[in-house]
Amino acid sequence: MNKIKIAIFGLGVVGSHVVKLLEKNNNILNGSKFEIVALGAKNKSKKRNFNVKKYNWVSHFSDLENYAKPDVIIETIGGTGSYINNLYKYCIKKNISLITANKAQLAENGDKFFADFDNQKLFLGFEAAVLGAVPVVRSIEQSILPSKVNKIYGIFNGTTNYIISQMYDNKISFQESLNQAIKNGFAEQDSSADLSGRDANHKLVLLSNLSFGNKFSFSDINYDGIENIKLIDLEQGLKLGYKLKLVSLTERYSNSKFYSSVAPCFVPENSLIAKTDFEENVITLEGDSFIKTSLVGKGAGGYPTATSIISDLKRFISHDETNGVFVKKYSSMPKSKFVNRSDRKRPYYLRMSVSNKVGVLKSIAQIFSQKSISIKSIIQLNTSNEKTVPIVIISDPAGVDKINSVTQNLKKTSFIKKEISVIRIEENIG
Amino acid sequence: MNKIKIAIFGLGVVGSHVVKLLEKNNNILNGSKFEIVALGAKNKSKKRNFNVKKYNWVSHFSDLENYAKPDVIIETIGGTGSYINNLYKYCIKKNISLITANKAQLAENGDKFFADFDNQKLFLGFEAAVLGAVPVVRSIEQSILPSKVNKIYGIFNGTTNYIISQMYDNKISFQESLNQAIKNGFAEQDSSADLSGRDANHKLVLLSNLSFGNKFSFSDINYDGIENIKLIDLEQGLKLGYKLKLVSLTERYSNSKFYSSVAPCFVPENSLIAKTDFEENVITLEGDSFIKTSLVGKGAGGYPTATSIISDLKRFISHDETNGVFVKKYSSMPKSKFVNRSDRKRPYYLRMSVSNKVGVLKSIAQIFSQKSISIKSIIQLNTSNEKTVPIVIISDPAGVDKINSVTQNLKKTSFIKKEISVIRIEENIG
Repeated sequence: MNKIKIAIFGLGVVGSHVVKLLEKNNNILNGSKFEIVALGAKNKSKKRNFNVKKYNWVSHFSDLENYAKPDVIIETIGGTGSYINNLYKYCIKKNISLITANKAQLAENGDKFFADFDNQKLFLGFEAAVLGAVPVVRSIEQSILPSKVNKIYGIFNGTTNYIISQMYDNKISFQESLNQAIKNGFAEQDSSADLSGRDANHKLVLLSNLSFGNKFSFSDINYDGIENIKLIDLEQGLKLGYKLKLVSLTERYSNSKFYSSVAPCFVPENSLIAKTDFEENVITLEGDSFIKTSLVGKGAGGYPTATSIISDLKRFISHDETNGVFVKKYSSMPKSKFVNRSDRKRPYYLRMSVSNKVGVLKSIAQIFSQKSISIKSIIQLNTSNEKTVPIVIISDPAGVDKINSVTQNLKKTSFIKKEISVIRIEENIG
Repeated sequence: MNKIKIAIFGLGVVGSHVVKLLEKNNNILNGSKFEIVALGAKNKSKKRNFNVKKYNWVSHFSDLENYAKPDVIIETIGGTGSYINNLYKYCIKKNISLITANKAQLAENGDKFFADFDNQKLFLGFEAAVLGAVPVVRSIEQSILPSKVNKIYGIFNGTTNYIISQMYDNKISFQESLNQAIKNGFAEQDSSADLSGRDANHKLVLLSNLSFGNKFSFSDINYDGIENIKLIDLEQGLKLGYKLKLVSLTERYSNSKFYSSVAPCFVPENSLIAKTDFEENVITLEGDSFIKTSLVGKGAGGYPTATSIISDLKRFISHDETNGVFVKKYSSMPKSKFVNRSDRKRPYYLRMSVSNKVGVLKSIAQIFSQKSISIKSIIQLNTSNEKTVPIVIISDPAGVDKINSVTQNLKKTSFIKKEISVIRIEENIG
């Protein structure tokens, strides 16, 4: 095999580590030689952990024309927008394969180019785009997909998991925990993509495409973040045997009908997902014949993510052109349909503050009963002589529409004093 | 590609599920057609979940001559001995690839045939031989090995993990837990290979060969089982923040020097390995650039193991002949050397019963001090007026030889009343 020519765009922590790893291996991987034909990034003069001067520098990818045409471009710029879109179009136009860590671009705009990569038999590697060093793409492709996957779920964002874990450990509010996470380097100043669940949803889209062989769109999936979670709910949940996690989940209902969501959920405290704390990520896959397999590891970091890119480079060498971006050809993948969200029944946790009066519990029970929702347990948190007392209710499994109308009816009463915390309970994930 | 011809030997739970899975897929995997040219097992007339009559039956592998020559043999017979040895020799003689779930044969006799498989460019798949449905072989080969692995460890045996977990949960003795595990189907009547650590060592040998690219021999690695663990030590350890697990571990000291062992160890109670309970298995890999990745899942079961065999069949199609059985060619792999076991220093847990007399603690401290071992903590478990009181000591890191001579010296004293429990503490695994 001839030398494989690589161009790398984006030379932040990940991109720089890729250069370092290739240099360390003498540009040889699996017996194949690699050559870096060009590098590019916003700022040439930034201090980096390798000697930039050894390589051709291009300030725009279109300047690649002046150098040997790469076989593969590594993109670690990140984000969406016209530059990235044009870079991907350039790959398709010039027949260049792509390895990327850019989950946002793949998840939000992938449907515009996946089929083109397939049709032109180009490789599109995205192991680095999901869960950092956890070899999840490869594991699914190679080991899981001989079987039919029925359910995937996990913690796909380390920043939010870190913040939640710290709230539990130090008994602090969301805001205090966020501030500490920023101080400790586990959250950015602007963590909005993490906190809102958007980042986790990017990964859920890609992993669902891969695992189910159906097209999942970013816009199809509801996502909620952790901005509104309260310490008191974490503590009350724990008393009932639950831990709160930002859960990403896709479940197959029939061959082509799914339920997908990213949301803070209570999960059984003894489950692996409950025990995965701080910056660790986890993904569990359940299927027909393999039962259940989980992968755990840190979801980010320069070196780990760079290792995933190197793993994709190795894979690029032995790329099987009969495969598509997602094992199947994208154009042949059916667009996934979704069950009505209210058809998914599950228990709910509700916490509210009510007037400390005779008959209030009975009125609450009546409101649930009107919507045919049974109450599994109702806990009045203290029996002091205060005028207002907190109450926690665990409902029997119910659809979200009914729970919403219950909370609306509760809010209309005179005895509910504050906002109601409503948290889904996922009993059957572990 | 022509139809790939398969013969399957061993039609217990795993082998039968392989037939079922192939039938379910219409004998097509990844676009390649498979054909089962022959089946063989001890007992033809046993009830099975598929129609045996549809296939050619051979009572001995040498009868394969009468049918189309298979491209690959799937062996799920298990165990060692002359029949298995001859089957492997037959594959080499006839140029037939092999997919096997037989860890004992690979770990104990692999050095007799690995190089032959490599030299003849035959495929030898063993995903099904280690950790059942957990796609560990594939993950290491494809995703981990671009980096240098420094340490692998985990729980490689579900039966022993189940027994230990039950001891914790139900506060019962080893023997009671074993009996329950047999009753619940989580242990065989004869579980000696599991209980003694032998089975875990088989997997450690194979995974060490693969992860470090060095030859590890079964006979090189010390293994201890769980037969002698006591509930009181589990409970005392927990008070100190440790959980007991049967830990399999290989650690790199220098490029070709290693420490390997299978033994009951105390691990930090917050670690993933501590939290992996009952029949779950876990493997964690630590390396230069990927930091740390763990895989968790059930280690056994007919369907999961059959799925791993199917995954190997898929891999067989795209077998890269430049790879060997273990990514590297076996003949080029150096034989691993081991550090002197006493050079590995770590804390120890010791529990003993001593006379309730003045001066005893001082005498114990002196015995430790004579061997230059510091005591990190010493706990007298109760201060009753009994003649004998239990004492737990946590030592600072020390070599096993020094700990052994301390226990010998302690046993010589007049105030030690019973046998001493000595358990290693692994602080740095998680």
